[in-house]
Amino acid sequence: MRIHNMRRVVIVFVVGTALATVTAGQTAKPAPATGGNGTILDDLVVANRILANENILDGLGHVSVRSLQRPDHFFLSRDLAPGLVTAADLVEYDLDGNPVNPKAPQGYRERYLHAAIYKTRPDVNSVVHSHMPSVLPFTDVTMPLRPMYHMAAFLLPGVPVFEVRSVQGQVGMLIDNNKVGAALAQTLGKNTVALLRGHGVAIVGVSVPDAVSSAIFTDVNARAQMQAVALGGNIHYLTQADMAPPTPNQQPAAQPGTAGYYPRSWGIWKAKAMGEKR
Amino acid sequence: MRIHNMRRVVIVFVVGTALATVTAGQTAKPAPATGGNGTILDDLVVANRILANENILDGLGHVSVRSLQRPDHFFLSRDLAPGLVTAADLVEYDLDGNPVNPKAPQGYRERYLHAAIYKTRPDVNSVVHSHMPSVLPFTDVTMPLRPMYHMAAFLLPGVPVFEVRSVQGQVGMLIDNNKVGAALAQTLGKNTVALLRGHGVAIVGVSVPDAVSSAIFTDVNARAQMQAVALGGNIHYLTQADMAPPTPNQQPAAQPGTAGYYPRSWGIWKAKAMGEKR
Amino acid sequence: MRIHNMRRVVIVFVVGTALATVTAGQTAKPAPATGGNGTILDDLVVANRILANENILDGLGHVSVRSLQRPDHFFLSRDLAPGLVTAADLVEYDLDGNPVNPKAPQGYRERYLHAAIYKTRPDVNSVVHSHMPSVLPFTDVTMPLRPMYHMAAFLLPGVPVFEVRSVQGQVGMLIDNNKVGAALAQTLGKNTVALLRGHGVAIVGVSVPDAVSSAIFTDVNARAQMQAVALGGNIHYLTQADMAPPTPNQQPAAQPGTAGYYPRSWGIWKAKAMGEKR
Amino acid sequence: MRIHNMRRVVIVFVVGTALATVTAGQTAKPAPATGGNGTILDDLVVANRILANENILDGLGHVSVRSLQRPDHFFLSRDLAPGLVTAADLVEYDLDGNPVNPKAPQGYRERYLHAAIYKTRPDVNSVVHSHMPSVLPFTDVTMPLRPMYHMAAFLLPGVPVFEVRSVQGQVGMLIDNNKVGAALAQTLGKNTVALLRGHGVAIVGVSVPDAVSSAIFTDVNARAQMQAVALGGNIHYLTQADMAPPTPNQQPAAQPGTAGYYPRSWGIWKAKAMGEKR
Repeated sequence: MRIHNMRRVVIVFVVGTALATVTAGQTAKPAPATGGNGTILDDLVVANRILANENILDGLGHVSVRSLQRPDHFFLSRDLAPGLVTAADLVEYDLDGNPVNPKAPQGYRERYLHAAIYKTRPDVNSVVHSHMPSVLPFTDVTMPLRPMYHMAAFLLPGVPVFEVRSVQGQVGMLIDNNKVGAALAQTLGKNTVALLRGHGVAIVGVSVPDAVSSAIFTDVNARAQMQAVALGGNIHYLTQADMAPPTPNQQPAAQPGTAGYYPRSWGIWKAKAMGEKR
Repeated sequence: MRIHNMRRVVIVFVVGTALATVTAGQTAKPAPATGGNGTILDDLVVANRILANENILDGLGHVSVRSLQRPDHFFLSRDLAPGLVTAADLVEYDLDGNPVNPKAPQGYRERYLHAAIYKTRPDVNSVVHSHMPSVLPFTDVTMPLRPMYHMAAFLLPGVPVFEVRSVQGQVGMLIDNNKVGAALAQTLGKNTVALLRGHGVAIVGVSVPDAVSSAIFTDVNARAQMQAVALGGNIHYLTQADMAPPTPNQQPAAQPGTAGYYPRSWGIWKAKAMGEKR
Repeated sequence: MRIHNMRRVVIVFVVGTALATVTAGQTAKPAPATGGNGTILDDLVVANRILANENILDGLGHVSVRSLQRPDHFFLSRDLAPGLVTAADLVEYDLDGNPVNPKAPQGYRERYLHAAIYKTRPDVNSVVHSHMPSVLPFTDVTMPLRPMYHMAAFLLPGVPVFEVRSVQGQVGMLIDNNKVGAALAQTLGKNTVALLRGHGVAIVGVSVPDAVSSAIFTDVNARAQMQAVALGGNIHYLTQADMAPPTPNQQPAAQPGTAGYYPRSWGIWKAKAMGEKR
Repeated sequence: MRIHNMRRVVIVFVVGTALATVTAGQTAKPAPATGGNGTILDDLVVANRILANENILDGLGHVSVRSLQRPDHFFLSRDLAPGLVTAADLVEYDLDGNPVNPKAPQGYRERYLHAAIYKTRPDVNSVVHSHMPSVLPFTDVTMPLRPMYHMAAFLLPGVPVFEVRSVQGQVGMLIDNNKVGAALAQTLGKNTVALLRGHGVAIVGVSVPDAVSSAIFTDVNARAQMQAVALGGNIHYLTQADMAPPTPNQQPAAQPGTAGYYPRSWGIWKAKAMGEKR
C-alpha cells in the first residue's frame, strides 16, 4: 500500500516541481502562475520550513515574497519562528513595512530589511534574512566571502558588508526602520548577497526557490571557504572566465547576477522539510 | 491522550509562549505568572529537553529555576540525564544545596553550582551548567570568548574563566560543595557566562527561557569565533557602541547585562525537542 | 504491504547483502548476478538514497551503473534529486549519453561525465558525481587529497584535479557534452577519484556498492585531512608499504586500484537510508 | 496514555541503570550481575547501537565484552555492522580469537585486537575498536591526543600510537592475527586508549558502559583539542593536580587509569539509540 502511495507522491511532486519552476520565475520577470498568490504563498510556507530544516534559519530570521498582483506589496510571516509558519501566519505589507490590514498580528521587527530591498530592486521577488552560523565569521573579518564552486557563482560580483554603525542615529544592530533598511539596500546594490556586520546576511532571488537556493549554497560555500583557508596556500576562486552566458532556461552553469537556481533541488528540500514519504 | 491532542497542543503552544514570556520575566524581576510554580516547572522540564536536543547538554550538565514562592529555594532534576527529565523528577533545594524534602532522590553532585549563584545573584532566576563541546576549547586557552553577533551580546561585559585549583583544598574538578560553589559565583560576578577551566560553562538568566537562549547562542558564538580566528586577521567583535539602551519590552537589540532573550525562539526549540506536530 | 513486511524486509536484507556482494563484483569483472539487471538496478536506487542520506549528494549530483547485458549501456536516473529516485525513474543510456529510448524523460545535463568514463574504463561499473562539501576545498587549493587511513587507500595512486578551462571552447563549469567528458576521463586515468576544480568530484568503482563506499570514505578522509593540516606538523599519509597485496576475497586491507569495498557497510547504510526497522 | 507509558519507561530505565552499573563494575572486578551473561550481553547489544548512533562506529568497528563465567572468553558480534546487531548475532570467542562453537558464523577479521587485549589486561572487561573521524587526524600527526576536560581524564596517563609497520612480516593495516594483536596490546600497555596509525583507535573499560563512555568522550575531546590548537597559544591540558583520588563509588571526578564512567549517561544514550519513548 505504501509503495502505491509513494508513486502517487512522486507524480504529485513532479507536477509541483513544474509549478514551482514557473512561479519561481527563471527570469527577472516571473510569469504569473496559474495558482496566483496562492502558489507563491504555498512556496513561502515551504521555504520557511526548508530554511529551518536546513539550519539556515533558527528561531530567528525570515523569508518573504513579493506579491504578484501588487508588486508594491510583499508577504512575510507574523512574528513566528520559521519552522512553525503556516499559510495562516502570512501578512501582507507595503514597501514601507506597514501591514495592509491594520489589524494584522505583530510582525517581525526587521521587516524593513525586506521592504527596502523590494523598493530598490524591482528584479527581486524574494528575500531571506538569516543568522546562519557559517556566515557569522565573515561578517566580522576582513576576508571577503568568495565563490568556491559553481553553485555559488552568484557570489562572484561581490559580497558587500553592511556596517550598521555608518547609519547616523541608528541604535543597536537591527534593521528596524526604513532609514537603516534603505542604507542596507544601498550596500547590497545589484548583488545577490550582503553581509550584515556582527549580525547575519541578506540574500535575494528572482523567486522564492531562487532565494532559498542561494541561501543554502551560500552556507555550503562559506564552510568550504573557511576550510580552504585553513588548508593554506592560494585559493582558486571562481572567476568571470568560469561564467557561461545566460541561457534561455537558465541552467546551473554559473551565471553571476542571474538566477543560479536549478529546480531539481526544491523537491528534495521540500520532502525533507515537510516529512513527505519518499 | 497526548496523541489525540496534537492539534490542541499547537494551539496551547501559542498561549504557552505568551505565558513563558511572562514567566521568563523580560526584566530582572519576573512578574509572578498565573501558573505559579507549575508554569516555571513546566518550563524547566522543557528546558531540559531543549538543551539535550540542541546538543548543549549530553547525559551530564543540568538546568535549574528559582522558586517563585520561595526565592531562597530552587528546582533541579534528580540525578538524571536532561533528555529524560519529567516533572516528577524535579527536586526542590535550599540555597545551600540541601533538598527541602529529606527523602528526595539522589541529586546531582554539582547542585552547589546552582545554589551558590542563586545566593549571590538575586537577579538570576535560572542557571545552566554544560560541557558543550564548542566552549571546551575556550576553557583551556588564553583567548577569551567574545561576542561575534548581536544574539550573543550578553558576552560583551566579559566571560571570566574559573580556575578550580585556586580553591584551597578542593580535590578534582567538580563544583561539589558550597565552598567551591561560592568561589565560582565570585568569578562569575555580574556576568552572564563563566567558563570552568577544563570542565565547561555556567550560564545564567532572568528566566528559564533566557538562560536556555543564552546557552544556545553561546554555542553558536563559540563556533563562529573559532572559525573567524582560523580565517585570520583582525576580528571585529561587538563593542559597547553596538549596544542599544534597554527598552521596555527588551527586544533583541544587543543589551549587555540584561535579557537578550527574544520569545520567538522558544516555540521552535520546544516543538523540535518535544517532537510536536508542526 | 511494506509495513507488514518489515520483519521480512530485514531477512531479505541479509540475503540482499549477499547478492549485492556478488553483483558488486569484488574483482574487476563482476560475476553476472542471478537477478540480472533487476538486481543492479535495485542497488542503484538504494545507492541514490544512501548517498543522499549520508550527505554525499544534495539535490544535485548522481550515481550510475553499467548494464550487465549491454556493457556499452548504463543506467542513470532522470533529472531528479537522488533522495527521491525510484526504479521507475531510471533511464538507459549509450556511451555517448543518448537515451536508448528516444521518449525517455529529461536526463541530467552532466550524464556525459558517466558516459565518458564507462567508454574509457572497462573496469568501471559504477560512477558517482558529487559536490560533497568536504571535497570542495580540495578542488580549489594546491594541496592534493591524500589517504589518511586504510579505508581510503584507494586514494593512494593519486587524486588528479580536472581543470575545465583547459578544454578548448568549453563554456561554464559543467560536464555537459562528450568532449568535456572525454577530457575529464583522461584526467581521471586509472585512478578512483578525480576532483573537478570549483565544482566537485567523480568517483568510480567496480560495482555500485564499491563506488558508494569510496564516495563515503572520500568524505571522511577529506575532513580528516583538513583537521590534520590544522593540527600542524608532518602528516603520515598511507604509503605503498601499507598496502597489502590483493587477496582473492578482496578484504579491506588497503589495496590501491582495486576494490576497497567491504560488504559489511552496505547493510547499515541501506537500513538508515530506507528507514528500515532494526 | 502515552504519558502513562512514559512513566513506566522511566521506571524501567532506572532499574536498567542500576543493573548496568552493577554489571559495568565500577571497580576492576565487576561483581557478578544477577542477570549473568544475559545482562552483559544485553549491554553489548545496546552498546553496538549506541556507538552507531553516536557516530563512533559506522559500518565498521566493533565492541566486545569479557564473559563473566569464563574470563578467558569474550563475546563479539558476527561480521555485521554494529547498528544492526541483535543478541542472536553475538559469538563467544576464546583469547586466541577462535570461536567456541566451530559452527559460529563468520567473525570480524580484527577480533584478534579484542583477544590480545583481554589476554594481557585482566582488569579490562570491554573493548571498543573504532575509526571515529575525530581521532583519525591524531593517528597521522605527531601531536599527541591529550585531555581537554575532566570527562576525558582517562587520557591523562598517555595515548600511545601503534605503528603496524613495526610488526615483522605484517601485511596491510589490519589487526588480523594474534601476533599483531599482541603487539598492539603491548603498545596499549596500562592505558585506556591507543591510536592505530592510519587506522583508528582501541579503547578499553572495566565494563561495557565504561568503554562506551570513554569512546564517546574521546570523540568529544579530540574535536575540542583540534579546535583549541586552531585558536592558537598554549593549551592548559588536564594535569595530575586535577585528579581526585578514586572514591568508593567512582564518581566522575577525574581519575586516570580508573573508571571515569558515570552511570547517568547510559540511559539517554540508550534511549536515543533504541528510539525509546521519552
